[in-house]
Amino acid sequence: MMTQSISSGSRSAHGSAALTLYGYWRSSASYRVRMALNLKALDYRQYFVHLLRDGGQQLQPDYLKLNPQGLIPALTHGKRVLTQSLAIMEYLDEVFPDTPLLPGDAEGRARVRALCGVIACDTHPLNNLRVLKYLGREFGLKKSARDEWYRHWVSIGLDAFERMLANQPDSGRCCHGDLPTMADCCLLPQVYNARRFECDESGWPHICRISAHLADIPAVARAAPENQNDSE
Amino acid sequence: MMTQSISSGSRSAHGSAALTLYGYWRSSASYRVRMALNLKALDYRQYFVHLLRDGGQQLQPDYLKLNPQGLIPALTHGKRVLTQSLAIMEYLDEVFPDTPLLPGDAEGRARVRALCGVIACDTHPLNNLRVLKYLGREFGLKKSARDEWYRHWVSIGLDAFERMLANQPDSGRCCHGDLPTMADCCLLPQVYNARRFECDESGWPHICRISAHLADIPAVARAAPENQNDSE
Repeated sequence: MMTQSISSGSRSAHGSAALTLYGYWRSSASYRVRMALNLKALDYRQYFVHLLRDGGQQLQPDYLKLNPQGLIPALTHGKRVLTQSLAIMEYLDEVFPDTPLLPGDAEGRARVRALCGVIACDTHPLNNLRVLKYLGREFGLKKSARDEWYRHWVSIGLDAFERMLANQPDSGRCCHGDLPTMADCCLLPQVYNARRFECDESGWPHICRISAHLADIPAVARAAPENQNDSE
Repeated sequence: MMTQSISSGSRSAHGSAALTLYGYWRSSASYRVRMALNLKALDYRQYFVHLLRDGGQQLQPDYLKLNPQGLIPALTHGKRVLTQSLAIMEYLDEVFPDTPLLPGDAEGRARVRALCGVIACDTHPLNNLRVLKYLGREFGLKKSARDEWYRHWVSIGLDAFERMLANQPDSGRCCHGDLPTMADCCLLPQVYNARRFECDESGWPHICRISAHLADIPAVARAAPENQNDSE
């Protein structure tokens, strides 16, 4: 049910255990993990789980055996099965500490994780495909109302993210200092989504500046949805 | 605008820096952090931010100075301001390592964080007060439809959580082994919410068993909404 490819990371995984990412090109949470893997220059295979085919391949029995939540992404590392994008990024940062994605101090880590939470907890879950489907199916909402819902929550989330970038002195070329962290791995996919739904970006100068900087990093560019083999 | 109390933790905070929690008795995310603070037996003050008074005290200028996202909880540790419940719990676990809330191995930590994500990313954000308000205000949905929405996402989230508890050998008297972790700090508040909205618990034997065990731990019981000074 899934197609397969080999990505072009430049470094072998720790020990002999292989890394395999189960994701979908346009999934925001998959995009986060691809950024983390690529920033760490890790080799990994990709299995493409098509969210719109076969009634959602993430809900098929063979995928549910891997991740009983029926959501992507999942990452296998040898026999270990990891789910939830934030947990996966934390795991990668612990097991492959080169090119860290969290700052070296507890206060900085708390800030980066809080920025992640603004997007991964408070923004993206409201605009997930399954939520938009529910709004249409159960409440009979037309596309225009669903799009308005989408833009409402993106605006609230990214407005708050922008204020945190603007008001907190640790912001740099990236969300926290000048090197990418987990916060950047959350931000860029959310900005990609915001642009897909034509959100008004005029109130987000820091977000736009950082996103442009990130998009120019080759490892980050390779993680972009349009550069995946399953993109349509 | 806020009332104040002193909690009865049994241990002083690290160094001389005081801990102050800004929360609301029935807020699920506040409840998580109270559990973490109490399990670590840390002393902390509480400021009560009433979500329903004054148009939402979390949106008043003095609170927005503390947390520009306008959400609770926030925790101050001396001059440090911490937001987002998952980030706050990670911070507490790093700065006050006694009574750890994460396992000692990377795979275990990934599992606990994934369980946290199922609730904090995929379940609770859909049922937040601001979301329920939006459904009523913008889509004109009556209480019965909003309650159906609520129960739908709780069921999907806790069904998945239950399968993870049932299928993964690390489950114990608590979500991961026999001692409480961050996953338990996320689970119990979500179960509290599920009961408030009269969700069907019959498919959740592991969740119900673990919740009953947790509720009997004195430090956990002290974190319950009904035991807060601002409860109504």
